[in-house]
This record gives sequence, structure tokens and C-alpha cells, in this order.
Amino acid sequence: MGVPAARVSLNTATVREQWTLRQCIEGCARHGIGGISPWRDKLGELGAAEAARLIADHGLEVSGLCRGGMFPAADAAGQQAALDDNRRAIDDAATIGAACLVLVVGGLPAGSKDIAGARAQVRDGIAAILDHARACQVPLAIEPLHPAYAADRACVNTLAHANDLCDDLGEGVGIALDVYHVWWDPQLEVEIERAGRERLLAFHVCDWLVPTKDILLDRGMMGDGVIDIPHIRSLVEAQGFDGLTEVEIFSARDWWTRDPDEVLRVMVERCRDAV
Amino acid sequence: MGVPAARVSLNTATVREQWTLRQCIEGCARHGIGGISPWRDKLGELGAAEAARLIADHGLEVSGLCRGGMFPAADAAGQQAALDDNRRAIDDAATIGAACLVLVVGGLPAGSKDIAGARAQVRDGIAAILDHARACQVPLAIEPLHPAYAADRACVNTLAHANDLCDDLGEGVGIALDVYHVWWDPQLEVEIERAGRERLLAFHVCDWLVPTKDILLDRGMMGDGVIDIPHIRSLVEAQGFDGLTEVEIFSARDWWTRDPDEVLRVMVERCRDAV
Repeated sequence: MGVPAARVSLNTATVREQWTLRQCIEGCARHGIGGISPWRDKLGELGAAEAARLIADHGLEVSGLCRGGMFPAADAAGQQAALDDNRRAIDDAATIGAACLVLVVGGLPAGSKDIAGARAQVRDGIAAILDHARACQVPLAIEPLHPAYAADRACVNTLAHANDLCDDLGEGVGIALDVYHVWWDPQLEVEIERAGRERLLAFHVCDWLVPTKDILLDRGMMGDGVIDIPHIRSLVEAQGFDGLTEVEIFSARDWWTRDPDEVLRVMVERCRDAV
Repeated sequence: MGVPAARVSLNTATVREQWTLRQCIEGCARHGIGGISPWRDKLGELGAAEAARLIADHGLEVSGLCRGGMFPAADAAGQQAALDDNRRAIDDAATIGAACLVLVVGGLPAGSKDIAGARAQVRDGIAAILDHARACQVPLAIEPLHPAYAADRACVNTLAHANDLCDDLGEGVGIALDVYHVWWDPQLEVEIERAGRERLLAFHVCDWLVPTKDILLDRGMMGDGVIDIPHIRSLVEAQGFDGLTEVEIFSARDWWTRDPDEVLRVMVERCRDAV
């Protein structure tokens, strides 16, 4: 049981308040962590080319780039800006050799209550960038987000919906599965099987704390919450998923306030014992 | 468009910090609100028989009693205690002539990560009280709660799951639909149609605020958030639902701090203009 450090990836959000991208890369190497998944703000510190060189020098895999998406907008100019930004994200993902570009698809445009309309914009947005992604050989990974984020972050909130989009859009589109967002879903088992190996592009872990004190920034370290992570991992692996297990913890109250070397040490322990 | 005051019901949670049940009943009458839905702690102030008399004297309908449920427990004694409590709730619902007993089904027992097991306990718990509910002619209304409450309040988190339970359990079990819990669901339209008139026992409204500052106690007044309430109401009414529209707002930061007569005044306005 458990995931050895060499098969773990650090999502830079986990220590985003403490470390630069360079420090994250060096930290992973120091702790024997096999991969990294940078957010774009961190990537911007070095630029994609320099980051790619540094990541390769430290022998790390890149389990993903976070993030593209945010398609819905109130007007055509906003929609176009989102597409342009997504194409740049695809270029960066290609440069760093990311296994996928994670898409946090976006929520309701300001002032809108039209979630069906937002979902249509998401579908059309992914379709619009798909040729570029295919040309760059960057798989797009739709991340279904917990329904608590439907309004302001992502209006794709179930694995079933993500699978529907994959059915619709075809080759080059898959799924980033984060246990935090999907653990509650009674259709989880069925929809992981439906996704299958081809679509499962990324596997993210953290934990759901009880109580959750902040809807965005109070995620837990694996083992500290109520998610049966080994069970979900077994479902994903039963489909043949053999990518890195990526640790992404937004934790303003706890892990972002700690010594980042302690965070990585605990994260490695917990991937071994609680994932 | 809109719901007139006579077709509105006050869920006592909306002014729970300000008013006793007696004040709630008198407040409804004063504002022309046609119904009430008490929580059991408020009902305990008067006892069910006296409450029934006072409610009838003020000409109010009772759109529901909140709440039964909370079935999952760590041991048999806890499970039995939950069943006993639910039977008492059914008796109280019968005494006050409630249209239904709302079931907030319960989450994970302390220390458990077994959500499938909790769901099985919920199914078995409802089955165990169903004969008594039928004998008392009290319909049981399963309320699917937002997935944000899966761990600690209710492990039935989609209308599809509630419909599955209704299929399984048969006559005497239906659904309490609260827009706050289901507005994000891409299957909402399909599952409301599947529920149909027979199962739609209660319709609750409030709004989803952006940002939501507290996962439990920051619900909004209708019109102040992002839910397209008129659309959802139209779906429910298309099935023939003709019950009261019940206003249930948990709002520690805002509405619970206001003059309760102002709360009822605004609530009536918003039911007319934003529901």
C-alpha cells in the first residue's frame, strides 16, 4: 500500500506561500519526490524554458501544468482573451513537457445566473483550443471541481459531466481527478470506469477536513480528513493509471504557515501511509 | 411571476436566533404568510399539541417539520436511538399536520471514511421507520444536501440518489427540494422530471452567495445570489407541484442579526420578485 516518494508529484500550490519555483524544484530533489506540477504564476518567475531546464536538471517528471480554463466570460472580448491565454498555457505546458494542461473551466460570468450557458461556453472554449493542444501534443485535463465552486471557479462539477465533455470533444481531452472534488459522488466508481485509462491524465490528492473552515483554503493533508483515498486510488489504478500521485493542498491556516521542508516530509510520509 | 405571501412558508430557521415559535407563528400571520415549517427545537418550546393549536388558530398551513434523519451511527445503540428519535418526529409531524417530515439523513459516523456504508445505513434507517410513517400518514421527505455537507450532515447529495432511494423504498417516501443544495446539478432538470408530482413534497428557497464565507451559515436571501430560482420553480411546477414555497435561510452574519419583522418583509418581497 501507499505511494513511494519517487511516484509523488508536488503541486506548487501546496507550498505556494513559502517557496519560489526554484525552491520547489530543489525541495523535490532533496526529498526524493519524483515530480512537480507548477502553477503558472510560479512558472512566470523563471519563464517556461528556464523552468524546463531546471526541472530536467533535477530529474523531475512534470505531472501537469496548472492551469488553463476559465472560459466563460460576459462578452466576446473576454471569451477571446480566455482562448488566447489558454493557447499560451498550452505552449508553456509543451515547453516544460507537462503530462497535461489542467483545466479549471471557470464559473458564472459576473452577474450571470445562467449555468447552462456557462457550461456551453466551456464546451465551446475547449473545442476552440483543441487543435492547438493536439498540434502541441498537450493533453487537456478537465478537472471537475467540487459543486461548492460551481459559481466562481468551475461549472463542471461531476466526473460524469467531464466524461460527457470528453465524449463530445474527442481525442486530446481527458480528466484530472482530484479526490477532494469527487469523493462524495455516488457515481464515482462507475464514472472512473467510464473514464478508463485513456482519459485519466492526472490524480490529485489531499483530504476533506471536518469541519471545513474555509470553502477554498482549508484543505487537509492526506490522512487528516474523511476521504478514503486508498479506495479511490485503487479505482484509478484498476483502470491502468500509472502516473504520479500529485499532492495539491490549499491550506491558508495550516500547511502554508509551516516550514516547507516539514510539509514535504509529512507529504511523503502520508503518501506512503495514507494514500 | 413570483409567489404571493399566502403561498409562502416560513421555515423557523430563517429567524431562529430572534424569535420563539410563538413569535414566528404570530409573525407569519402579521405578514400574511400562509405557512410555517418549524424545527423541532422550536416545537419543543410549546410541545406539538399546543403548537398545533396555535398554528391552526392563526390559519397557517404546515409545509413540513424539520427534521428527522441522522441515521448513520458508529454502533447499534446509536442506530437504535436515531430510529426512536425519528419515530417521535413522525408523531410530532402528525400532530401538527405537517405536509412532510424532512429528513436530513446524516453523514459519516465519527471516525468513519465509509460513505457507501453510511448510505446503506440511511437506506435501512428510512426503511425501518417507514411503516410508522405510513401508519401516521406522514410522508417522509428526503432532502438531498449539497455535497459540501456529505461528511457531516447528509450523505445523500444529489436528487438522483434521492430518487434512487424513493424507487427502492416505495410509497410514503418523497423528496424535499432546496434550491441551495441542487442548483449546480447538471442532472437537475432530468431528475425533477423523474421525481414527478408524487415525490415532490417540499420546495425550499434561499440563495447561493458569491463568495460564500461560511460553508453552513452564510446562505443568502432570494435574489442576492446566483441561483436562477424562477427557473427551478418552473421545473417543479411543471410537474404539478402546488405546495407552499418555504424560505429557509441560515445566515449567522446577516439575516439572523436583523429585526425579524424586516426579515419577513424582505422575504415576502423577494418571493414575489425573485422567486
